[in-house]
Amino acid sequence: MPDDRLTAAELREIWPVLSPEERGESFEHVDRSEVHGFFLGLSEQEQAAILLAMRGSERTLWMRLLAPDDAADVIQLVPPQDRAAFLQLLDEPTRREVAALMAYAEDAAGGLMSPRFARLRPDMQVGEAIRYLQRQAQEKVETIYYAYVLDQAQRLQGVVSFRDLFVAPGDKAVSDVMRRDVISVPDTLDQEAVARVIAQHDLNALPVVDAEGRMKGIVTVDDIVDVVQQAATEDIQKLGGMEALDTPYMQTSMLAMVKKRAGWLSALFLGEMLTASAMGHYEEEIARAVVLALFVPLIISSGGNSGSQATTLIIRAMALGEVAVKDWWRIVRRELTAGLSLGVILATIGLVRILVWQAIFHTYGEHYREVAATVAVSLVGIVTWGTLAGSMLPFAIRRLGFDPASASAPFVATLVDVSGLVIYFNVAQLLLRGSLL
Amino acid sequence: MPDDRLTAAELREIWPVLSPEERGESFEHVDRSEVHGFFLGLSEQEQAAILLAMRGSERTLWMRLLAPDDAADVIQLVPPQDRAAFLQLLDEPTRREVAALMAYAEDAAGGLMSPRFARLRPDMQVGEAIRYLQRQAQEKVETIYYAYVLDQAQRLQGVVSFRDLFVAPGDKAVSDVMRRDVISVPDTLDQEAVARVIAQHDLNALPVVDAEGRMKGIVTVDDIVDVVQQAATEDIQKLGGMEALDTPYMQTSMLAMVKKRAGWLSALFLGEMLTASAMGHYEEEIARAVVLALFVPLIISSGGNSGSQATTLIIRAMALGEVAVKDWWRIVRRELTAGLSLGVILATIGLVRILVWQAIFHTYGEHYREVAATVAVSLVGIVTWGTLAGSMLPFAIRRLGFDPASASAPFVATLVDVSGLVIYFNVAQLLLRGSLL
Repeated sequence: MPDDRLTAAELREIWPVLSPEERGESFEHVDRSEVHGFFLGLSEQEQAAILLAMRGSERTLWMRLLAPDDAADVIQLVPPQDRAAFLQLLDEPTRREVAALMAYAEDAAGGLMSPRFARLRPDMQVGEAIRYLQRQAQEKVETIYYAYVLDQAQRLQGVVSFRDLFVAPGDKAVSDVMRRDVISVPDTLDQEAVARVIAQHDLNALPVVDAEGRMKGIVTVDDIVDVVQQAATEDIQKLGGMEALDTPYMQTSMLAMVKKRAGWLSALFLGEMLTASAMGHYEEEIARAVVLALFVPLIISSGGNSGSQATTLIIRAMALGEVAVKDWWRIVRRELTAGLSLGVILATIGLVRILVWQAIFHTYGEHYREVAATVAVSLVGIVTWGTLAGSMLPFAIRRLGFDPASASAPFVATLVDVSGLVIYFNVAQLLLRGSLL
Repeated sequence: MPDDRLTAAELREIWPVLSPEERGESFEHVDRSEVHGFFLGLSEQEQAAILLAMRGSERTLWMRLLAPDDAADVIQLVPPQDRAAFLQLLDEPTRREVAALMAYAEDAAGGLMSPRFARLRPDMQVGEAIRYLQRQAQEKVETIYYAYVLDQAQRLQGVVSFRDLFVAPGDKAVSDVMRRDVISVPDTLDQEAVARVIAQHDLNALPVVDAEGRMKGIVTVDDIVDVVQQAATEDIQKLGGMEALDTPYMQTSMLAMVKKRAGWLSALFLGEMLTASAMGHYEEEIARAVVLALFVPLIISSGGNSGSQATTLIIRAMALGEVAVKDWWRIVRRELTAGLSLGVILATIGLVRILVWQAIFHTYGEHYREVAATVAVSLVGIVTWGTLAGSMLPFAIRRLGFDPASASAPFVATLVDVSGLVIYFNVAQLLLRGSLL
C-alpha cells in the first residue's frame, strides 16, 4: 500500500516524539529514496540506534548508504558483540576501508577523514585530468572539487582545485597548475587541532598523511562544523562543573546524567568541606565577633566569581590556540593587574555599602569602621588572589596532563573559598585586634 | 632591494610580537603575491587594523583583494569617519555590492553571505550550463560547485551541484537535473540560526533570499566555522560571569577587559550583599550556636555548584536547538529528579563526614546528631532548589528578552546563595529548637 508510506516531511514532523524503537520501525514505512537525505543528516548516535532496531535485510540497505567514515563511526557506537555483524553488511572494498578507519582513534584526524579522495598524477595533462575526475565523480569520492596529486609512493606532491583545472589550458601539465605548498596534517592529530588548521587557513578540504608521508584521506570543512560544535559543548559542560555528556541533553538517561554530575559535585563537596575546617579554626573569633560571620558568603563568593571569570577566559583562549603554556608569565602579569583593579572596585562598593547601612540602620556596632576596613582590605586580597588562581589553574591542570577545561568555575570557586576564608580571618585578626578581637 | 623583503614564512614568525602599527608597515616590506594568503587568513579585526596603518596607495591594492562580504566586514570595523574613503578604494561594481551588504546587520544571514554565486537558467542544457559555469569560474564567483537556478524574477527554482551536471548527459535540461527542494534562509535570519541549518543538513552552501523570495547570495560552510567558534566563545565567556570580549584575549586592552569583567562582578557583588542581610537576620542564632556558621560556605556552595551544572546544561542545549522554551515543564520534571538524587548523595557524604569527624575529633559538641541532621536535610533542599533554579533561569531570562547565556554560573550561584541561607537557617530552627537554639 504505497499510500501508507511516510514522506520525509511527515517523518521529520513526528520524529521528536518517537522512541528509538519506533524510529527504527518507522524506517520500514518510508519511501526509501525520499528519506535518504533525512537519514544521512541524523547524528551517528541516532543512525546507530535506528540500525540496531531494524530487521537484518533492511539494515544492509541503509548501512550501505553511509560513507566509509560515517559507517566506521556508527559501527563504533553499536555494542561490541554486534560490530563484526555490522561490518559484514558492507561490500568488500568498503569493508576494508572501514576496517582501516576503525584502527584510528575516533577523535584523531584519521578517524575523521574520508579515504575516498580524488587523485591525479603530476604528469597528466589538464584536459586528461578533467576527464579523469569526471569518471571519479561517478564513483564514491567525497569531492572532486579538490584533487590531490600523488607520486608513485602515494606521497602528496600538490593540490589543484577543479576550478583551477577548469580555467587552465587543456594541454598544460597538472604539475604546472597545482599548488605545491599544500597544508596537510598527520593522521594522529587530535580533531580539535584539525579544526583549528581548517579554520585558520579557511580550507574546504585538508589532506591527511601517515608517518611515511603517504596520503590517507581528506577531512572536509563540513565535518569540522560538528567537531567545533561538539568540542565547545564539551568545554561548556566541563566549565559548568560536570563531566561532558555523550548525548544531547534530552536524550541522556536520568541515570547517566546523575552519574556525570554527581562525580564532580561530590568531589567539589569534599573540597568545600575544608571550609568547615577553616571556619572551625576561627570559631573563637566568630564567637567573639559574630559580625565577622555575616560577610563570609559575600567575601568568598567574590573570590569565586573573579576566579571563574579568569579561568573561563584562559580556558577558551587555550582552546582557540590564542594562549599557549609558554605564555603563563605574561598572563600572570595581566591577571595580577586586572585582579587588583577589580578588587579595588569591589572593595569600594563594599566600603560604601557598610558605611551607608551603618548610617541608616546602625547594624554593625561601634567598631563599624574597623569592620568596614577588614571587609575592604580582604576583598582586594581575595579578588586579586581569586583572579590569579583562576588564571593559573588551567595551566597547572594542563601541566599535569589533564584537559584544562576541567578547571571549571565551581572548581576554582571551591579552591578560592578556603583560601578566601584564611585571608579574611587573618586580615580581621590584624585590623580588629584590640577592638573586636 | 628585493632581498630586504619578508617572505610569508618570516612574516608569520614575527607576527605575534608586532604592534598594530608595525603590522601595517610590515606589509610594505613583503612580496605581495607571496603573502596574499596570509593576509586573507587574518581576522577582520587584524585586516582592518593593518589597512588603517597603511599608506593610501598600498591600501587600495590590499582592499581590492578582499571578497565583497569580507570587505563589508572590514569597512564596518574602521572608524565611521574613514568608512566612505575605504568604500571609495573599491572598483565600481564591487562598491555597489559592498554597500548593499553593509545595509544588513553584521550578524544576520545577509551580513554573512557573498553576493557572488553561480547562476543558471532552468531551460539551459547541461553542456551549455557547464560551459557557462566555466566562464563564471574565471570571474569572481564564490564557488562554481553549487549553481543556483533562477527564474526571470531572480526567484530560486532549484540547485544543482557541478558534480551532478558533470555526470549528466550534455543535452538534458538543467531543470531535469536540478534538485527542487532547496533549503534556503531569509536574509534577516540570525547567523547562529544559519549555522544550525547548515550543520543540521550538512550543507556546503546555503542560498539566502529576501522577503520577496529573490535570491541575494550564498553562505558557505567555511564562513560558518568562524560563526560557530565565535558564538561558543561568547557563550563561554558569558557563562564565566562576564561580558563577551570583542577581541582575542591577548589582544584585548587592560581597560577594555576590566570594563567587561567589572560590570558583572559588581552586579553579582551587589546581589551577594543580600547574603550579608540574610546572615544579619540570623545573627542571634549564630551567636547562640556558632557551629551553624561553620557549615555556611559548604552549604551555599553546594547549591551554587548544582545550579551551575543545571544552568550550563540548559543554556548549551538551547544554543544547539535541542531544547526550546516550550519544553520548560519537561525540564522541570527532569531537573527535579536529578536535583533530588544529587541532594541525597551530597547529604549522605555530609552526614558521614560530620559523624566521622565527631568520632575522631569531637568537634561538634554534644548535639552533633542534630547538627548533622540539619546539614543533611538542608543539603537535600538546597541542592534540589539550586538545580531547579539553575535550570529555569535561562528560560526566565529568555522570556524577558535577554540572551539566556547571561544566566552564568556565578549568577546562579549568587541567586542560590541567599535562598540557600534561608533554607539552612529555617531547617536549623526547626531541628535545633530545644537543643542548640
